[in-house]
Amino acid sequence: MKDLMLKIRRFIQERDWEQFHSPKNLSMALSIEAGEIMEHFQWKTTEESRDLDAETFNEVKDEIGDTLVYLLRLCDELNIDPIKAANDKILKNAEKYPVEKAKGKSKKHTKF
Amino acid sequence: MKDLMLKIRRFIQERDWEQFHSPKNLSMALSIEAGEIMEHFQWKTTEESRDLDAETFNEVKDEIGDTLVYLLRLCDELNIDPIKAANDKILKNAEKYPVEKAKGKSKKHTKF
Amino acid sequence: MKDLMLKIRRFIQERDWEQFHSPKNLSMALSIEAGEIMEHFQWKTTEESRDLDAETFNEVKDEIGDTLVYLLRLCDELNIDPIKAANDKILKNAEKYPVEKAKGKSKKHTKF
Amino acid sequence: MKDLMLKIRRFIQERDWEQFHSPKNLSMALSIEAGEIMEHFQWKTTEESRDLDAETFNEVKDEIGDTLVYLLRLCDELNIDPIKAANDKILKNAEKYPVEKAKGKSKKHTKF
Repeated sequence: MKDLMLKIRRFIQERDWEQFHSPKNLSMALSIEAGEIMEHFQWKTTEESRDLDAETFNEVKDEIGDTLVYLLRLCDELNIDPIKAANDKILKNAEKYPVEKAKGKSKKHTKF
Repeated sequence: MKDLMLKIRRFIQERDWEQFHSPKNLSMALSIEAGEIMEHFQWKTTEESRDLDAETFNEVKDEIGDTLVYLLRLCDELNIDPIKAANDKILKNAEKYPVEKAKGKSKKHTKF
Repeated sequence: MKDLMLKIRRFIQERDWEQFHSPKNLSMALSIEAGEIMEHFQWKTTEESRDLDAETFNEVKDEIGDTLVYLLRLCDELNIDPIKAANDKILKNAEKYPVEKAKGKSKKHTKF
Repeated sequence: MKDLMLKIRRFIQERDWEQFHSPKNLSMALSIEAGEIMEHFQWKTTEESRDLDAETFNEVKDEIGDTLVYLLRLCDELNIDPIKAANDKILKNAEKYPVEKAKGKSKKHTKF
């Protein structure tokens, strides 16, 4: 992950693109790429979304790649460790959604 | 990364939430979380986005954590290796954006 | 629609918020609000999404209100007539998706 | 607006697309289109976003058209009057953001 983050940083520096990579712009890029993943699923049923043909699978894989690239770029610019951020957030989520209350329910914790 | 993916899978299984985690629903969750990161930057200038106060920084870190959680959940459901997806996509991006053409420019490759 | 656009403009001017309402920032706000609509549907089945309880219905209605507000703000700043933009786009969509080809299919026109 | 909503409904019915237009799917389509508007602004400065060239302007206008189409489709399926939804929400926003407190500030009301 750290290697990938550094590789992406070099890719950007070689192209002189740091000037465009403010956290603000990167948050937009990340959201746009996440929307492009979603585009492949919008008209599919739940079941169809579990069973992609090879072409769609590869397109989704590419969009996932771009999404991770921008997520890591954003983390790099903000000096955030993404693995630690996820682990810390999972601890908070475990408190907000204790197993006994949340089991089998899709409600938001504010609606328990 | 693999450890984190498995940890998140267990979190979901303990709560009996696999039923909600179709790729379709996960792509929505990922896009929503990416929007929540962006919410912290929408009214900030580029410069302000580089210099967050401690409270905003922690909120952004939490949203980044949630975004990575859903990205890994989606990869887990689709059986995609996110690091490989990013590396493969970077190769394609390097072809679409060769240094000599892309240097210092923010244009989309289709507009070169 | 024109009245609503002017009413929103006054709301913004009274609060001295024009300084924040660049088209760039408004496009972010619009996307964030659209994400907040989606948040109400992410874990629902297709069927459940057609049959909202009163509380959720009112929350969705509020998010739709905010989304239209930012769409009209963006149109106002760019001097675009949203009704004309939609009518013009429907003409293009009718060409891309002729009835005989598109009937009953959810495929993108590039995949016909 | 009402005319436009009915025109879009006919467009959909002629193509037998009602089956795809659950509120859930329409909320995804709306968010995706809002992301496509944003794509034109992601690497632009605030100033550049106010001064689009003719080609970009027309592309943004088209995306705005699509966004309004899906917003009206969603309102049609949920039986929501979008103008009333916006007017009702503006009243709530006026309470959350009274002029004397909100003037010149971009903070969220929860941070006043």
